[in-house]
Amino acid sequence: MDNPFLVEVKRGGLVESRHRGALVVIDADGGSVLSLGALEYRVFPRSAVKALQTMPLVESGIADKFGLTDEEIALACASHMGEPEHVAVASSILAKAGQDAGCLECGAHWPLGEAATRGLAAKGGQPSALHNNCSGKHAGFICLACGLDEDPKGYVKAGHRVQQTVRGTLEEMTGASHTSDVMGIDGCSIPTYAMPLSALAFAFAKFGSGHGISGSAKAAAERIRRAVAANPFMIAGTGRFDTKATEVLRERAFVKVGAEGVYCAALPELGYGIALKIDDGAGRAAEVAMANVLLHFLDMGDTEKAGIEALARPVLKNWNGIEVGSIRAAEALVSL
Amino acid sequence: MDNPFLVEVKRGGLVESRHRGALVVIDADGGSVLSLGALEYRVFPRSAVKALQTMPLVESGIADKFGLTDEEIALACASHMGEPEHVAVASSILAKAGQDAGCLECGAHWPLGEAATRGLAAKGGQPSALHNNCSGKHAGFICLACGLDEDPKGYVKAGHRVQQTVRGTLEEMTGASHTSDVMGIDGCSIPTYAMPLSALAFAFAKFGSGHGISGSAKAAAERIRRAVAANPFMIAGTGRFDTKATEVLRERAFVKVGAEGVYCAALPELGYGIALKIDDGAGRAAEVAMANVLLHFLDMGDTEKAGIEALARPVLKNWNGIEVGSIRAAEALVSL
Repeated sequence: MDNPFLVEVKRGGLVESRHRGALVVIDADGGSVLSLGALEYRVFPRSAVKALQTMPLVESGIADKFGLTDEEIALACASHMGEPEHVAVASSILAKAGQDAGCLECGAHWPLGEAATRGLAAKGGQPSALHNNCSGKHAGFICLACGLDEDPKGYVKAGHRVQQTVRGTLEEMTGASHTSDVMGIDGCSIPTYAMPLSALAFAFAKFGSGHGISGSAKAAAERIRRAVAANPFMIAGTGRFDTKATEVLRERAFVKVGAEGVYCAALPELGYGIALKIDDGAGRAAEVAMANVLLHFLDMGDTEKAGIEALARPVLKNWNGIEVGSIRAAEALVSL
Repeated sequence: MDNPFLVEVKRGGLVESRHRGALVVIDADGGSVLSLGALEYRVFPRSAVKALQTMPLVESGIADKFGLTDEEIALACASHMGEPEHVAVASSILAKAGQDAGCLECGAHWPLGEAATRGLAAKGGQPSALHNNCSGKHAGFICLACGLDEDPKGYVKAGHRVQQTVRGTLEEMTGASHTSDVMGIDGCSIPTYAMPLSALAFAFAKFGSGHGISGSAKAAAERIRRAVAANPFMIAGTGRFDTKATEVLRERAFVKVGAEGVYCAALPELGYGIALKIDDGAGRAAEVAMANVLLHFLDMGDTEKAGIEALARPVLKNWNGIEVGSIRAAEALVSL
């Protein structure tokens, strides 16, 4: 089945590029609210499920045992820009478990944030695993290992108790089996499991509503959502969609990007879970699609509306600051 | 019409993302050699036509009047990474016309090359218009203005004699009308005109073969192709597709990327012109598609083949250097 055009990129009066994709919205009881494109489209959720991967750390009481703050819990759910504040919080998580950056197995890379990269280079610095956009999640995994009295070494492997535990939570939340035939390796070396987009949306309906999950899982999800809502900068960073959308909507929406054009969200007040995937993997299109879906479902005040509308139809400017085009919802999204 | 899948991105054993697009190959007489997808698909060529935009500078004798070297002519056709060598050559072009970076109207941006950006930041530097990936082309425009005894000021505007002259060449080469209703503004502020993909391919058939154009235009095209073939680093930079492909194939293929998933090539020995556009604008897919087309049409020796095959099926590694997937031709390209 061909997925519809969700987003188009205009230059002058013409469409220059187009993005197809699929979108699923599921309610707290697992019922379909909306679907565009192939419902059973199998996608790797990538970083979009970091909040779900953080649930065992919170639900087990290990986060509290180590005294993790809301800021630290938010960073554990983040794809961050490697800005100095992110690096400091990742270090702090590790220190609380008596560990340091030497335990991180996510690999090092220059900060995703360009200004952070230039700042690091200007100081003569080199990137470490703390700058990896997944370092918060990995620091959380290391806490989980320590709390379970496991050696953190090898915590990224599918056979390690950390990944087994996380996989169990993902299977419970999504209802999708996480078997080796649908396994890929993520950018930060942990396993990622392809699943139907509908399963991913259903997981976020549960995450936002607490329906159909245990009381302790519900409490953990709530704690995580509130931690992120209170610390929007930690979930991404300067100028990023997740940070901006969270600053505007706070506890009304939990939104999280995944690589290759995946976006997930939970809308607690409606009990809805949202998952979308842009076929070609483009983040710019996934962002615009998500902003349009948020505008469609949430009844927003003027300030909220203005904040999300800026994300729903970004203006493209060239190097001289001249407006040359825009990115906007295509027909399938406009006519929702 | 739906364009076919040209390229797919695999993670583990599964396809994670897919790119659709259109491809046209035209021979020196304007006959169709191959077409996939919508032939009359209207695309903004963006930077893919920089070599054609350089033709007036060479054909008019102005490049020789100012004593431009092959390296400088190659940079005029480039989307470069802003590496120190590129910056030096752009300055040198300007100096030969008695001008400097203050005349550039392309806007400043940090180098597209990440290492170049970090190097500049480490020295406490700031980006100038010389770092703009189009600075070579703009320096060439300024030479053209000076050679025509025109004030370079405003040379990026559609009404300036420089753009009028360049537009005339583009219309002659492509056969497509360059009117204001199909005009967009490019990243560097000059006009870019949408045209059918077939017109773009035909222009490159002429550029590579010299058929159907004047003797002086043919000589200019030849000079430009040879200048780039002799200076692959100038056309792009460290690690870039155009530089690597040119290092391998030299005068056998002129290849040039454009923004938003456009790629053009000329294969002089066959008289073919190639143009392709990835619907969603992804450069990674345009590169893989172009490498596969080159492998299909050119009879290559082992070294050439190995060089282009590496570009035709790039391996994706994660931050720990672990192979996690690949980008490869999809069915429509595989079955050529």
